[in-house]
Amino acid sequence: MVFDKSKLEKSVIKNFKGGKKDFTANIYEDAENKMLLGKLEPGASIGLHKHETDSEIIYIIKGDGTVCYDGENIPVCASQFHYCPKGHSHSLINTGNEFLEFFAVVTK
Amino acid sequence: MVFDKSKLEKSVIKNFKGGKKDFTANIYEDAENKMLLGKLEPGASIGLHKHETDSEIIYIIKGDGTVCYDGENIPVCASQFHYCPKGHSHSLINTGNEFLEFFAVVTK
Repeated sequence: MVFDKSKLEKSVIKNFKGGKKDFTANIYEDAENKMLLGKLEPGASIGLHKHETDSEIIYIIKGDGTVCYDGENIPVCASQFHYCPKGHSHSLINTGNEFLEFFAVVTK
Repeated sequence: MVFDKSKLEKSVIKNFKGGKKDFTANIYEDAENKMLLGKLEPGASIGLHKHETDSEIIYIIKGDGTVCYDGENIPVCASQFHYCPKGHSHSLINTGNEFLEFFAVVTK
């Protein structure tokens, strides 16, 4: 199976997980995995949340941001990836002047 | 946790899964997930293999290729992603003139 934005329905979620502004995502999901092409406008964020039963991997495509991982702020930029294993907490904030674009996988 | 190529050891694997030429990968792995920044030179491939107990998701960063998924050849290019759920087979071939670069997650 091969996907791109044009093949997936777009969701715009305001204040996702208690974050700021809009989170836009094109999502494909089955019983085992969720994968999405996501973006946050400047100043937007995905709020802090704990992965109780799953893990998440985020590859940064474009832009600059900050991950708060278990209370530690870590800058992220294009070509880097962030891993939040099961049992850990994170948030993602767009700290740049452009859209922060990423590809995320949530492993259930 | 945030990773990039500079923080991960580089592996160069010849004829990976029976494919052609070199597969280069910077890998991070734990008991639950494997994630890697991979690249295939022009003409290189990852050979056909079945995901018996895990699944794989591949986001294409750069270049052009073909995925053979359960016997069907599907072209892939930058900004697209390929999903091979558990129980399915796939290969990845660089059909372009430049490196095919990708980010992959194997969910165990």
